[in-house]
Amino acid sequence: MRSAAATTIELSVMTAIMTTLTSFCLKGFHRHVLLGSTKRFYSSSPQWSERTHTCGELRRVHADQRVSLSGWVQFVRMNKFLLLRDFDGLTQIFCSSPLDKQLRCLTLESVIKVEGTVRMRPPGQENASMATGEVEVEAETLTVLSPASKDIPFLTRDYAKAKEETQLRYRYLSFRYPEMQQCLRIRSAFMDKVRRFLIDSGFVDVDTPTLFRRTPGGAKEFIVPSRTPGKFYSLVQSPQQLKQLLMVGGLDKYFQIARCYRDEGARQDRQPEFVQVDLELSFVNRPMVKDLVEEMLASAWPQHLGRLTIPFQSITYETAARKYGSDKPDLRFKNEIVNLTSTLKQAFSREFLDKFLSRVTDSAKAIVFTVEEGKSVSTEQLRQLSNQIVDDLRTSNPEVDFMLSHFVTDDQGQVKSSLLRKCPDSLVSAVCSQMQVSKPRQVGVIACGNDEAVTTALGRVRSKLASISMNLDPTEFCFLWVEDFPLFSRNSSGDLESSHHPFTRPQAGQDNLLLTDPLQVKGEHYDLVLNGYEVGGGSIRIHEASLQRQILEDLLRIDVSELSHFLKALEYGCPPHGGIALGVDRLLAVMCNANSVRDVIAFPKTSAGRDVMSDAPCLLTQEETDYYHVKPILPDSDE
Amino acid sequence: MRSAAATTIELSVMTAIMTTLTSFCLKGFHRHVLLGSTKRFYSSSPQWSERTHTCGELRRVHADQRVSLSGWVQFVRMNKFLLLRDFDGLTQIFCSSPLDKQLRCLTLESVIKVEGTVRMRPPGQENASMATGEVEVEAETLTVLSPASKDIPFLTRDYAKAKEETQLRYRYLSFRYPEMQQCLRIRSAFMDKVRRFLIDSGFVDVDTPTLFRRTPGGAKEFIVPSRTPGKFYSLVQSPQQLKQLLMVGGLDKYFQIARCYRDEGARQDRQPEFVQVDLELSFVNRPMVKDLVEEMLASAWPQHLGRLTIPFQSITYETAARKYGSDKPDLRFKNEIVNLTSTLKQAFSREFLDKFLSRVTDSAKAIVFTVEEGKSVSTEQLRQLSNQIVDDLRTSNPEVDFMLSHFVTDDQGQVKSSLLRKCPDSLVSAVCSQMQVSKPRQVGVIACGNDEAVTTALGRVRSKLASISMNLDPTEFCFLWVEDFPLFSRNSSGDLESSHHPFTRPQAGQDNLLLTDPLQVKGEHYDLVLNGYEVGGGSIRIHEASLQRQILEDLLRIDVSELSHFLKALEYGCPPHGGIALGVDRLLAVMCNANSVRDVIAFPKTSAGRDVMSDAPCLLTQEETDYYHVKPILPDSDE
Repeated sequence: MRSAAATTIELSVMTAIMTTLTSFCLKGFHRHVLLGSTKRFYSSSPQWSERTHTCGELRRVHADQRVSLSGWVQFVRMNKFLLLRDFDGLTQIFCSSPLDKQLRCLTLESVIKVEGTVRMRPPGQENASMATGEVEVEAETLTVLSPASKDIPFLTRDYAKAKEETQLRYRYLSFRYPEMQQCLRIRSAFMDKVRRFLIDSGFVDVDTPTLFRRTPGGAKEFIVPSRTPGKFYSLVQSPQQLKQLLMVGGLDKYFQIARCYRDEGARQDRQPEFVQVDLELSFVNRPMVKDLVEEMLASAWPQHLGRLTIPFQSITYETAARKYGSDKPDLRFKNEIVNLTSTLKQAFSREFLDKFLSRVTDSAKAIVFTVEEGKSVSTEQLRQLSNQIVDDLRTSNPEVDFMLSHFVTDDQGQVKSSLLRKCPDSLVSAVCSQMQVSKPRQVGVIACGNDEAVTTALGRVRSKLASISMNLDPTEFCFLWVEDFPLFSRNSSGDLESSHHPFTRPQAGQDNLLLTDPLQVKGEHYDLVLNGYEVGGGSIRIHEASLQRQILEDLLRIDVSELSHFLKALEYGCPPHGGIALGVDRLLAVMCNANSVRDVIAFPKTSAGRDVMSDAPCLLTQEETDYYHVKPILPDSDE
Repeated sequence: MRSAAATTIELSVMTAIMTTLTSFCLKGFHRHVLLGSTKRFYSSSPQWSERTHTCGELRRVHADQRVSLSGWVQFVRMNKFLLLRDFDGLTQIFCSSPLDKQLRCLTLESVIKVEGTVRMRPPGQENASMATGEVEVEAETLTVLSPASKDIPFLTRDYAKAKEETQLRYRYLSFRYPEMQQCLRIRSAFMDKVRRFLIDSGFVDVDTPTLFRRTPGGAKEFIVPSRTPGKFYSLVQSPQQLKQLLMVGGLDKYFQIARCYRDEGARQDRQPEFVQVDLELSFVNRPMVKDLVEEMLASAWPQHLGRLTIPFQSITYETAARKYGSDKPDLRFKNEIVNLTSTLKQAFSREFLDKFLSRVTDSAKAIVFTVEEGKSVSTEQLRQLSNQIVDDLRTSNPEVDFMLSHFVTDDQGQVKSSLLRKCPDSLVSAVCSQMQVSKPRQVGVIACGNDEAVTTALGRVRSKLASISMNLDPTEFCFLWVEDFPLFSRNSSGDLESSHHPFTRPQAGQDNLLLTDPLQVKGEHYDLVLNGYEVGGGSIRIHEASLQRQILEDLLRIDVSELSHFLKALEYGCPPHGGIALGVDRLLAVMCNANSVRDVIAFPKTSAGRDVMSDAPCLLTQEETDYYHVKPILPDSDE
């Protein structure tokens, strides 16, 4: 029988444990969903399982039932109480003599099976923070199915949490954290609802190959040597060509949750392989694809995140760049870039401006935030933030001529700025009036110089300043369409390149512009942005062989021999068509408020493309490489 | 206005066209589902499309409605009638002056848009073999959206069908055949129902990586050079390790429709990449996994194929081999291998047998079929069939000592056999009595010699004889579990190797056998067989680190350094678990009664692993291979 002392100590200890357990993160906002409430997130059929119930299932109604539970030993206390954990939750097991002896040699995280009877906990000893907290199981037998080594790298505890490097190395242990379970389950449920919507809307799920032919231009593709000497497959960047060929074949509505590969080297928060919701429809126009995607997301949106408001806002690329300095602005906050140029030029002479505000002749713009309650922004933070952005932009273009200057307002709402400090009052007042700066707790950055650099810099300032000055709500999801992108841009060598990909259709009525001023041509492209992240991109495609050839050969100067099968297909009756691809990893990361896409991927790779658990990629034997007729070129070899 | 003459000619032509169109194959048995009946297979929402209806949708109720259709020009007759085709079916378009002029320059397979009004066809001119055959659309406008070249490689006709090589080269055109559309749609619908069942049963859909570390032993894995000189990823053969690690992590119930890669070289009807329904559960036993799979298949089974009867029959590997000479017998027919050995040995002296039936000392067995109505089997067919099987077995083992002899019965039910011809009547009669051969139209093969060769040969004879002597029903689906496989076999070098894979659990109570006679150990493995094809395989896994180490190191002598992360994981609390993988391509091929898995894959590769449409794999530039630090070894190079 349990003693009163044991009960008292148990209660306090258990409360402490449960507090840490239920405060697992995802920044806490999903907390109520998983544990600590009587509402259960998971369905837990006892079918096809040797247990009768899961560890999150038992309630008052189960009292006096004989049950069998299996799970991991989360905690043992006083050789009497054991917390048993599985994917569904925790159950307290009470072990009286002689079972208590077994508890003594039980290591944490061992897998055990418990048979026993459900009992109500003594009055006053319920644990309201635990879904099963009204009951406990009085064990009759306890079987160790798989003992855990004492040297386990980390336990399933919320405090002193393992570093990401350790979690990646022992990924199978980090799955035991409730938040990791939850991310994977939210992902599974969301993807299922996306499929459901598409299937119900008449889309056909078609698997397309990943071992395919190289695509000219575009991102770096992984290569796969074949058994034929010298010949290689390439891993597809996306099913773009293949889905367009399905449209030529009359499939009408295609989708695939597609595995794609892109070798972007060591880029932060990118994975060499990733998953996208890939879809394509025939006889469709831009508003239809946007409507479809909105309906799909609204229908698949997790209930616990509230309802999505559709339709989403749409803005042009030009507006996004001008107002927010970004093609993927976060519109949870409205703060726009203020253009000071014409005000200043109208009010002051060029000589005057040149004297006080060098470089203003080209462009002068600013972004201003009001620091919200509970937040504070120091001038030191502003200085570092500005320097970082200047450094980044100078790295990609050392020639660029621009400068940043930050400011904060004092208690009287007076602006303090290194740039404006030496300026006459008339100038300061004109600038502040234009920026609407007059209150305490305002902070901002003014940029002068090359207009493109000024805008890009303020776009970056905007998102960083928002994150330090505002209490952004991670459960607010602001979707946004960005459209009317230019079809082409010039690369550093001065050649035209596609802003998106060469299959994007130019907007109607621009045939002449294509010949005379291709940089002015706008495309039938649409990007989907969520809280400042690009989560999707698509377009209406070119369905005419001649136009496709013109764009590939005459404008982009791409060797079409690699695409001859594709161009041929357009000559045999190709319906007008369009589609989109949504990046699942990024979308889920935003939905789960995760720090990185790695948090919503079961076995992610590091930004350097390494799997630290298995240590892939790895060396192969010569026999293995010979088999594929390749010889590794090592740094110390002469070849 | 339409003339009476036009109508008469139209009717006969249209009937001819429709007959060919509706007799597209899949051996005909799905025919009624797609066309030629008023029941429609596809849902066809006009949402997100510039048409008002699909080409399979219009009926009597739509009469006098204004509609807009888009599709491919299937046929044009007398510059008045046009058959318009899309994924959903065909609609007749009537074009009066001046639209008829446009028809003159319209090429077949061009994509057009038609606007007009639905009219009832004149009485007596309905086409009952066409779903839309009561109506036609009187066109008001006709817009060519994409003209097709006159040089199109083939049209969407059932007669003079393009060869497979041509269909693979112009795959996008073969999608236009209704049976190809249907295969892809049946596949999509089936996979959707499989997912539905698993999601509803609490499984979590987890994406696992395909770029991973090489697995020691097993099938040949494709290699993918990384940016790090000398280091390679391998493309996973299956998510085996990863799904077991998910179980260690407490995911409880995992599934994935997984892309897998296996380089088996030029093997008939295999693809370098393929799709499997991959699943794994914790705290489970063999009967539970079998039950789960049966419930899943029954729930996902296409309605038009009837209901699946569950549970499926189970037999042991030993029985399958003995009775049917195969570990994947087709049990749509019951014909068993007859063992003549002991009968003969009991009835006759060794000298007598040696004289007339050389090699019978080891084993003598036979398989007998009765040739069904409408079928005929010649002795020449039997000779070729026997020779082919002897050649195949001798190729893999030139030493093997066995012989085959075929026979047929004459009109009196007397056996005619080269082997038995010279034998005394007493011997012939003993053999025939044992084989139950006494009626006309019986055919069979007797095999003598090495028992394993005899059984294997008769297993192959069995399936070939069935295909030529029986009217097998392609809509009969005979699922079968095969179990109790030996855990190990000996390879040609005399070393032990896993019959399935090294993670399969030995059956309980065989710890001692593992040490003393490992070839006698049976595994917790189960294969799923459908109509003679292996469509799935799974097992309960080893969850103890020590047992796994013993099997890998002591018995299989595999270098475990490549698996250290996996062995480590078993030390940190691993639940008992098991699962299965079902081959989607093969399963669908049997369901669709297709000749090859290529018929149920959108973009398949040839048996040599080539994509003939894009001509992948292909040569790369030196720049591309240098980037991945590999140098191709070409046959004429010295390295």
